[in-house]
Amino acid sequence: MARSYVYNAQDLFDFMVRFFRKLGVPKDRAEITAEILQSADLRGVSSHGIIRLQTYYGNRLQKGLIDPLANNEVIRETPASLSLDGKNGLGQVAGKDAMLRCIEKAKTSGVAMVTVRNSNHYGIAGYYAMMALEHDMIGISFTNSQPLVAPTFGKNRLLGTNPIAVAAPAFSEKPFVLDMATSIVPIGKVTVFDKAGDQLPEGWAVDSDGKPTIEPKSVLNGGALFPLGGPEILRGYKGYGLALWVDIFSGVLSGAAFGKNVADPNKSTNANVGHFFAAMRLDAFRDPDEFKQDMDALFQQLKTAEKAIGQDRIYIHGEKEFELSDKYKKEGIPLLEEVVKSLQVAGEAVGVPFDLAAIGEIVIDPAHSGN
Amino acid sequence: MARSYVYNAQDLFDFMVRFFRKLGVPKDRAEITAEILQSADLRGVSSHGIIRLQTYYGNRLQKGLIDPLANNEVIRETPASLSLDGKNGLGQVAGKDAMLRCIEKAKTSGVAMVTVRNSNHYGIAGYYAMMALEHDMIGISFTNSQPLVAPTFGKNRLLGTNPIAVAAPAFSEKPFVLDMATSIVPIGKVTVFDKAGDQLPEGWAVDSDGKPTIEPKSVLNGGALFPLGGPEILRGYKGYGLALWVDIFSGVLSGAAFGKNVADPNKSTNANVGHFFAAMRLDAFRDPDEFKQDMDALFQQLKTAEKAIGQDRIYIHGEKEFELSDKYKKEGIPLLEEVVKSLQVAGEAVGVPFDLAAIGEIVIDPAHSGN
Repeated sequence: MARSYVYNAQDLFDFMVRFFRKLGVPKDRAEITAEILQSADLRGVSSHGIIRLQTYYGNRLQKGLIDPLANNEVIRETPASLSLDGKNGLGQVAGKDAMLRCIEKAKTSGVAMVTVRNSNHYGIAGYYAMMALEHDMIGISFTNSQPLVAPTFGKNRLLGTNPIAVAAPAFSEKPFVLDMATSIVPIGKVTVFDKAGDQLPEGWAVDSDGKPTIEPKSVLNGGALFPLGGPEILRGYKGYGLALWVDIFSGVLSGAAFGKNVADPNKSTNANVGHFFAAMRLDAFRDPDEFKQDMDALFQQLKTAEKAIGQDRIYIHGEKEFELSDKYKKEGIPLLEEVVKSLQVAGEAVGVPFDLAAIGEIVIDPAHSGN
Repeated sequence: MARSYVYNAQDLFDFMVRFFRKLGVPKDRAEITAEILQSADLRGVSSHGIIRLQTYYGNRLQKGLIDPLANNEVIRETPASLSLDGKNGLGQVAGKDAMLRCIEKAKTSGVAMVTVRNSNHYGIAGYYAMMALEHDMIGISFTNSQPLVAPTFGKNRLLGTNPIAVAAPAFSEKPFVLDMATSIVPIGKVTVFDKAGDQLPEGWAVDSDGKPTIEPKSVLNGGALFPLGGPEILRGYKGYGLALWVDIFSGVLSGAAFGKNVADPNKSTNANVGHFFAAMRLDAFRDPDEFKQDMDALFQQLKTAEKAIGQDRIYIHGEKEFELSDKYKKEGIPLLEEVVKSLQVAGEAVGVPFDLAAIGEIVIDPAHSGN
């Protein structure tokens, strides 16, 4: 069991902005980065939120491994596509700029795609896909990441957890927001089980021989994550194929690093992460209101369908996260005690004390909740 | 164990063309349909090949449920997108025309996307994605299909096995060709186990209560397939999300049927299947040769990596299928005895006797081989 402290979302946002500004990040960029990190915490994807403030961003800014003033540069351009160089800037700044340009291009071309090379960890993929929604567009974003996943029949970490995010608007229903790592679980989930002294569910990961294991330490010490699907008999090669697809679009097509060459943000080397974005105007294909009404109809088919024994709800992707976000905006965001401590240490190191007053306290079982 | 007879690929192709022509399909369209059906058999995806000749196509043409003379009509057009109405024609004819138009549009726009509504089963998704390869483009195709998959926490068949296909060229290596159903296995695989009297591997499917089952009959009689990932603990909701994504792009965006409303091709109703296509010029993003060389490098990272205990090869998606295709073109295509019998019956019904001479005979264990 782990204690969490609850903080006001605006307070955390303001702290992150102060933190980034102290590290030489201009105000508007500090706000973009803080907003995207916080969007993860609000949506319950805490692995991609403020927990990474120092390790993935603060540390790297301090060491000169991320250029806080970099601007995306255009490498190639067609009527419906852009190839950008992120010039080793903040992933969130590069990503938001790239998706805005993608949306602009789609306004004139109907659909558009944009790649970014030479970037850094950009937070949750879903944020960028969701940027399309207010424009009556569908949004897509992929990114590659440091190697953690073994290919089918392999045993080493060769591919990232390479997420796929797709967002599409509905009418009365919440938008569809698929935002999924192409591994079964993130590595952080294995760490959580390890700390709790629990064994893993069968089928999440392999040991250093490439054999399925339920021992967290066997995964953390030289093992690897399974791609979605797990072993071959359950068609894990499909998840491996999805991870490879994301790497081809984010890494190879953009001209960034790929495969095992994508650097761990915790290491003192250039990351050269790559991203992929797409935007599609609904009215390029059909009447947008008709599209949204049919989205509602599809979701209603699913939500009103008979439930499996013991279940009382069928979810649409993104639905839980919208509900959590509403709740956390109102009631505050819970941060694990160890995250709070790491923020205190980070604040100390950077000279921006983490001195926020918690507005509440809760106790949860981290191995058996959330992502 | 099941007996298979081996036939010359060209002989089978010619038979299919004769079959379709007899049913009022013009020569060029008969050839397109036969070619795409045969591409499945050559690639070892026999579930989407000649086995469906009568049930998915012949039957429907005879009953007037598919219009052999239909042409795609443009509903909406932007510089980089097209929305087409297939006018209830053959899925293969509509699909190939749509992908050709998508490629043409990408030539001027850099990237392009095309949807098709009011179509029929189009065979393997991979064929259309692969059409992009010879143009130095990446190709994508999705299609929806009749409901067979239960959403996470549901128990009914609400979504198709909705495949995702992505093809991207390499330099010396074979192209990357991901062509995957978003369910763990197709329903035909469950039928094969049932006929063999075998139990299913754990985690493929659910019974009519939505509970995981290893009894083929429990799946076939009111049960459903699991999406990729399987149960919630193994993140089957990601596979459910992928199936929903494919349905949104193929069904909702195109204006076709979606969810449980996509008709089974075996039934005497309009299918209103929807397809989605995309094409992306490599040189819109970077130098095509550099792209292809990096594809080789990525594949080499994977193929030369250490193997899991007991394994001797790591595959890239499409590699096995290219090898099989070369073999079958040379040595002939094996058809299960029961498939041969069904072709004899179909030929009889249509007035085009299946009188080909087998060039060989093999015996395989269908429950434990192939897809």
